[in-house]
Amino acid sequence: MQQSKDMKTTVGAITPQVLSYTAGEDVDLDRQLIDADCIGTAAHVTMLAAMPLKPPLFSKVQRDRIIDGLVRIMQDARRERFQITLKDQDVHLAVERVLTARLGDLGRKVHTGRSRNDQVAVDLRLFAKEQMLATTAELGVLADALLKFGYRHRVVPMVGRTHMQPAMPSSVGLWASAYAEGLLEDQVMLQAAYEINDRCPLGSAAGYGVPLPIDRRLTSDLLGFRRPYHNVICAANGRGKLETATLMALSQIMTTLSRLAQDLMIFTMPEFGYFKLPSSMCTGSSIMPQKNNPDILELLRARAARLTADAMVVAEITRALPAGYNRDLQETKAPFMRGFLLARSALQVMTPLLNGLRVDQEALLRGFSPAVFATDRALALARQGMPFRE
Amino acid sequence: MQQSKDMKTTVGAITPQVLSYTAGEDVDLDRQLIDADCIGTAAHVTMLAAMPLKPPLFSKVQRDRIIDGLVRIMQDARRERFQITLKDQDVHLAVERVLTARLGDLGRKVHTGRSRNDQVAVDLRLFAKEQMLATTAELGVLADALLKFGYRHRVVPMVGRTHMQPAMPSSVGLWASAYAEGLLEDQVMLQAAYEINDRCPLGSAAGYGVPLPIDRRLTSDLLGFRRPYHNVICAANGRGKLETATLMALSQIMTTLSRLAQDLMIFTMPEFGYFKLPSSMCTGSSIMPQKNNPDILELLRARAARLTADAMVVAEITRALPAGYNRDLQETKAPFMRGFLLARSALQVMTPLLNGLRVDQEALLRGFSPAVFATDRALALARQGMPFRE
Amino acid sequence: MQQSKDMKTTVGAITPQVLSYTAGEDVDLDRQLIDADCIGTAAHVTMLAAMPLKPPLFSKVQRDRIIDGLVRIMQDARRERFQITLKDQDVHLAVERVLTARLGDLGRKVHTGRSRNDQVAVDLRLFAKEQMLATTAELGVLADALLKFGYRHRVVPMVGRTHMQPAMPSSVGLWASAYAEGLLEDQVMLQAAYEINDRCPLGSAAGYGVPLPIDRRLTSDLLGFRRPYHNVICAANGRGKLETATLMALSQIMTTLSRLAQDLMIFTMPEFGYFKLPSSMCTGSSIMPQKNNPDILELLRARAARLTADAMVVAEITRALPAGYNRDLQETKAPFMRGFLLARSALQVMTPLLNGLRVDQEALLRGFSPAVFATDRALALARQGMPFRE
Amino acid sequence: MQQSKDMKTTVGAITPQVLSYTAGEDVDLDRQLIDADCIGTAAHVTMLAAMPLKPPLFSKVQRDRIIDGLVRIMQDARRERFQITLKDQDVHLAVERVLTARLGDLGRKVHTGRSRNDQVAVDLRLFAKEQMLATTAELGVLADALLKFGYRHRVVPMVGRTHMQPAMPSSVGLWASAYAEGLLEDQVMLQAAYEINDRCPLGSAAGYGVPLPIDRRLTSDLLGFRRPYHNVICAANGRGKLETATLMALSQIMTTLSRLAQDLMIFTMPEFGYFKLPSSMCTGSSIMPQKNNPDILELLRARAARLTADAMVVAEITRALPAGYNRDLQETKAPFMRGFLLARSALQVMTPLLNGLRVDQEALLRGFSPAVFATDRALALARQGMPFRE
Repeated sequence: MQQSKDMKTTVGAITPQVLSYTAGEDVDLDRQLIDADCIGTAAHVTMLAAMPLKPPLFSKVQRDRIIDGLVRIMQDARRERFQITLKDQDVHLAVERVLTARLGDLGRKVHTGRSRNDQVAVDLRLFAKEQMLATTAELGVLADALLKFGYRHRVVPMVGRTHMQPAMPSSVGLWASAYAEGLLEDQVMLQAAYEINDRCPLGSAAGYGVPLPIDRRLTSDLLGFRRPYHNVICAANGRGKLETATLMALSQIMTTLSRLAQDLMIFTMPEFGYFKLPSSMCTGSSIMPQKNNPDILELLRARAARLTADAMVVAEITRALPAGYNRDLQETKAPFMRGFLLARSALQVMTPLLNGLRVDQEALLRGFSPAVFATDRALALARQGMPFRE
Repeated sequence: MQQSKDMKTTVGAITPQVLSYTAGEDVDLDRQLIDADCIGTAAHVTMLAAMPLKPPLFSKVQRDRIIDGLVRIMQDARRERFQITLKDQDVHLAVERVLTARLGDLGRKVHTGRSRNDQVAVDLRLFAKEQMLATTAELGVLADALLKFGYRHRVVPMVGRTHMQPAMPSSVGLWASAYAEGLLEDQVMLQAAYEINDRCPLGSAAGYGVPLPIDRRLTSDLLGFRRPYHNVICAANGRGKLETATLMALSQIMTTLSRLAQDLMIFTMPEFGYFKLPSSMCTGSSIMPQKNNPDILELLRARAARLTADAMVVAEITRALPAGYNRDLQETKAPFMRGFLLARSALQVMTPLLNGLRVDQEALLRGFSPAVFATDRALALARQGMPFRE
Repeated sequence: MQQSKDMKTTVGAITPQVLSYTAGEDVDLDRQLIDADCIGTAAHVTMLAAMPLKPPLFSKVQRDRIIDGLVRIMQDARRERFQITLKDQDVHLAVERVLTARLGDLGRKVHTGRSRNDQVAVDLRLFAKEQMLATTAELGVLADALLKFGYRHRVVPMVGRTHMQPAMPSSVGLWASAYAEGLLEDQVMLQAAYEINDRCPLGSAAGYGVPLPIDRRLTSDLLGFRRPYHNVICAANGRGKLETATLMALSQIMTTLSRLAQDLMIFTMPEFGYFKLPSSMCTGSSIMPQKNNPDILELLRARAARLTADAMVVAEITRALPAGYNRDLQETKAPFMRGFLLARSALQVMTPLLNGLRVDQEALLRGFSPAVFATDRALALARQGMPFRE
Repeated sequence: MQQSKDMKTTVGAITPQVLSYTAGEDVDLDRQLIDADCIGTAAHVTMLAAMPLKPPLFSKVQRDRIIDGLVRIMQDARRERFQITLKDQDVHLAVERVLTARLGDLGRKVHTGRSRNDQVAVDLRLFAKEQMLATTAELGVLADALLKFGYRHRVVPMVGRTHMQPAMPSSVGLWASAYAEGLLEDQVMLQAAYEINDRCPLGSAAGYGVPLPIDRRLTSDLLGFRRPYHNVICAANGRGKLETATLMALSQIMTTLSRLAQDLMIFTMPEFGYFKLPSSMCTGSSIMPQKNNPDILELLRARAARLTADAMVVAEITRALPAGYNRDLQETKAPFMRGFLLARSALQVMTPLLNGLRVDQEALLRGFSPAVFATDRALALARQGMPFRE
């Protein structure tokens, strides 16, 4: 009977209290990892079948049967016919359970030469790669919307502020396109996280490699990674580090969006009235029908704090750990996966909000007082040769 | 048809995307608030019925029918017959829905003179009061277990360390009872959070009070609070502040437990072998049967980082908010409620772990080297009158 | 020659690089600890002299000579004639150096039965006690100023906001006094930190006590602590915990002030003009003479984030430490001492700012639109018996 | 008379309390920015002189006199003959003061077409560029030392651990080179921060540009930036963002070093004795002469928490700011500059520590128990075709 796994399971009699304490949110979270897990296993099996052993671990026919089984699981998942049960604990064992039910011993042998750590690591990286690309695309869409909004309103004057006080003449176009350029700047960090993610951790097993002639380059290539980790301990130490780098990059994006949200919350107060949020994106109040509440912007602002703190807590969980796997790392998984949700949902919601934003040119003009032009006059004098400080 | 609420609902056509972005985790979290919500409403209705209006808002008979209805909802909840649906959004509307279905207009009138903000605030405070008392009890149980463990092993020598290096003679008794005293010290902070929690926020409504002659002292007394807030804006500003204070207090407890966990992880490494964890509380490994992994301690150590970060993120969400309700505060609810879970589950699991901890006196003695006694000799010389520094 | 100390100094040949890496900011910070160090030593010496040893460690005459020497150092410090040099490293060794120069062997014997850890711990607690009392006094002064400001403007109408949007009628009086009550609420946490601080750590030495018949109750009484720690390891573990509790309490105060600052920054924008900051507390700009920049408020808002993060980093530094002294704790000293500076300077600066704040009643009235009164009308209808939701 | 500056100075009568509250640490910090400030000004003046105005702002002779003056200030600074006084407030005004004293009106005109925000921004970026390159070099040196250490001990066996428990056979070589690869991975993030830093902010002025025909490409080229910011508001918004990105990258490096430190602290405990720190890099204790305290490693571990928190606090300070300059940003300067110090000093101290680390092969071998080889046996069976789980 299959009952034990290398990193989590106990042989002895674990009490329900312990089980409950150690249970993470895997049963929920791992629904997002079914494809990654099947694809990672397919690559692993392909590599095992190609290993120069006599007899080979798997014949080509066996290999193909396993891959067919994995494809079927992926299809089942799409039709909501694949469950990760509490007894499974996680996606890895759920896939193995179904595979073994269908293929018998062949299903069990799939796990040769890797550990659950390998699986978690590779699944998260395949998941992250897809998420990062989607984030980049959505960031691009929002940057484009900002540029177009800016271009549409390029000649609409807007008071530029410092210290929240009116300072200098500016324009709606300049304001909006600043956020577009800011988002592209944030993309640099995300690109770095992508590069850190782009290494295949397979073959690290419990952190110290596998005494089998596995071909780590092959699995890496099959899975589309740039290269495998050189050092198997480094691959294990990558858990926590990758999560932190990614959350840091996402935090930068959210911070930019939060500043944009803060501007919008100020400029949509009736005392300004520069902009009006699309009513389909506001909430009102039955007892205060005049209200046009920017709930989305407020939640985004708060979630930016959440994402930054999550980056930090993952760094902190990692900071004082000795090398190699420590169970502490389980606690980095939920913030890592949630980070993408937080950043992507914010990017997604800001685009239609911006596209529906109405601009009140009259209100923007009212924001100008003669004082706002003082600097220009000072500079005009300077141009005529007068020392600037006088 | 009842369809709108004061703080969250919109009258207009909110898109599913907006609905999804603004939806919190209330449907899940609020299952823990059903009792609090019914009890809070019962107190509110009792006060409304006692209000000196002619005619009164509720007759005594009406009041009693409503309270009966609320008791029935609490009973239903215990039998899993009360659901908070996605359409309800939260416990407040679920209770109102059922009450109205059963009592008609009478159910609807329950909401007179309060807002959803009032309900969230009072529910969370009733919930927190119960949680704080339970935390205190569990902290006491663990402190007691530590003292008893210390007393049992009061003469078992143990090397005292500084900088993780052996330094001075000490004992298992001294070590264990230090953590008991440390937990009692943490209780001081929790007591402060209890006191901050012990004010009734009802009557604040949207933050600016209610133009009805409500009796805030009465609802406060009925609900067992020490007193109502004086200032209704202060009551509204209490959201965020209470959550932060509570999470800070819980973070202190977790930090103490994390240091205990760190000691145990070191002293159960085979190189020390001072202690042996109960095998029912460890996990092993199918491929490494010798392993006795302290997963519980590792997870506790990581969750201590989580709890501290959650305290901080709630403070941060609050920090730059203007006075009054801002939707940002929604994001403080999940960490607040989770904080109790994190701290209490840690306290609960440490007690049996400690009770099952085996002490290896031989291993503890092996930890002593002659050097450890150097200080005693130096002090003995000092006692004879020799300047200490020589 | 006196050249080594128990926790920091090495006997061997430490390289300048190591010295530079391990040097904290003690030479600077400890200037604030001179009084505490001398008073702590006076109490310790008094206790040593009272110890039932034959012959006694100090005669009464010797004891009095030492105390005279300590008083002289405190007087020297007031006249800027007492230096903590780089070679001293910290206040403890500077005091010992001067004492020994003046009293010879007698000065050296002062250190019998305690370690530098004892000294750091007791100095910081004596310092903190004074700082906490001063913070409380300043918090009271500001709360009083807020109440008086509120009372002066109790009938000045002000729009109450939710989601930063106008919502309900309110008043300047209600707004200001909400912050007064909020500060008093924060005082509860500070009181808890005071209580945690109110334990004498002397006698813990390197964390494992002293093999001399010292009287820990006596030193505790002499220094005005409520009681000594029971457990010497707990006293050592108190480092980090006390600092965290204190910074958490101060962070709550700063968060309240930051929200007040945020309100003031919004309500002094020309689009509102509700309030005008005293010009002596603003900065302007030579090229933008109209500017009235609320720099103080902005810095306060940022420093609130600093203080919260400092609370958290101290908790984090402590979290994964094994019991007993670890050098990591050195890094908690600067944020601990700076925390008082951050909170107290903010309290100090807000009082005159509030006292000089001008209120523009016209501008406040302009903030009212008919919609703001909608709720009142709805409630008036409700009072007449109409179900509230309709 | 020169008396006012655009962002900080007030025209009115600021009280000493306000001055003290708003004063940052610029007088100290800016000593590190003297070169950057002079070079930035030289580029700005060169550009101003090349501006197509009639008459030109500066003749070539005037331009060269100014540049000579700036070079002289840089030389003075090297000889400790250049002071930033409290009255100067910062490096920018100190340079302007000296320049004006020597060149009269010519010195004053230098400031035409830029603001102090421009200067702060460009100075910090020139400073950061140098610091990032130095960090990279030092990271390379340490990675090299780790690889060499690993190569020297490539066949020395070491127990690989998971959950801090012995798990699998490994080697000192594998362990050390894992950290080398880890550092190179962290370099990816630093490279991203370098790229974000590699944009010239000049021409943004107060955030809204300058109404003069300045050539932003020219100053960018002269200063060696890849390109100027497109959008002047984005350049202003870059403050906070650059600092966060940089501190995040440095935090990753420190986290890697902290894990290395944690390993070394465990493996140098006498119970392990795998490694022995060079005695010149440890501290001992006069009363505990056997002690060999790893103070450097403990401080590094704590400072890693500091650096991560600093990254986060800078993100937090930025998060809820509206666009444009806000004085809050002043509080990001000290953590930004300190971040480099924390990371670089850690890299610098780890290299000699590692080079002096002694390896005790006997002790490492004693760490092996038969159980450690269990996995290998299990895998050998698997290779023979047995399902892995059995």
